[in-house]
Amino acid sequence: MDQDPGFIAAVEEAKKGAAEGGVPIGAALVSKDGQILGRGHNMRAQNGSAILHAEMSALENSGRLPASAYEGATMYTTLSPCDMCTGACLLYKVKRVIIGENKNFVGGEDYLHARGREVVVLDNKECKHLMEKFIKEKPGLWNEDISV
Amino acid sequence: MDQDPGFIAAVEEAKKGAAEGGVPIGAALVSKDGQILGRGHNMRAQNGSAILHAEMSALENSGRLPASAYEGATMYTTLSPCDMCTGACLLYKVKRVIIGENKNFVGGEDYLHARGREVVVLDNKECKHLMEKFIKEKPGLWNEDISV
Repeated sequence: MDQDPGFIAAVEEAKKGAAEGGVPIGAALVSKDGQILGRGHNMRAQNGSAILHAEMSALENSGRLPASAYEGATMYTTLSPCDMCTGACLLYKVKRVIIGENKNFVGGEDYLHARGREVVVLDNKECKHLMEKFIKEKPGLWNEDISV
Repeated sequence: MDQDPGFIAAVEEAKKGAAEGGVPIGAALVSKDGQILGRGHNMRAQNGSAILHAEMSALENSGRLPASAYEGATMYTTLSPCDMCTGACLLYKVKRVIIGENKNFVGGEDYLHARGREVVVLDNKECKHLMEKFIKEKPGLWNEDISV
């Protein structure tokens, strides 16, 4: 799954976030037939946004869609989703959440399981490296983003 | 609590949403010392947004804040919060969620309880009327917003 177009897009988005000086987390929402509906990255630093985490950006960039468009969809994200992004995946009935890594943060994986979603953790080196570097360099921004 | 400034603000926001032809749900985030940090309403129709539910708008309009600013805060919302808005309240460790009504939709109230949050449902007539009228007039927009 590291080579899925959705995952590649999520990692590209995370790198864009890093290049912009932001929180380097990316995501892509992919329909059941493999179309990327939307992709995006965390925009806290860039837009002063408290809600544009990567998964939220991917949903927002997918635009207004009927429920049928999300059926069987997969959310690819470079980091384990926080409670907000977990809830957004539940609202839109995303079927699978594929996660780059959960060493630097563990979010709502158990709750996603409990609500019947598939969760896959790739333990991807590149995702881990991006987050480790960021947390070391900008701990204040990271703590603000994840509200600790 | 129907007379709390935060609740009055949430209802005002819901009415703004109705006047704009949108989903008439409003919210306000209030700090532990009673300051309105941010307020807003659902912006699906107005902005073509899949993520700007009322509570999300209130959080976004509060801007970037450190975790300490949310400590002991209350989210006032005119309708029971969906999974996404529930998750956002959990991420930011909002202490209380005060809900105008849950007759037209029941969201993550049990989960908020389970995660240690206070939940109060006011069963407010005005909130119920706003939603009933809206759902009758624009069922398509409502179904899209709540993803059914």
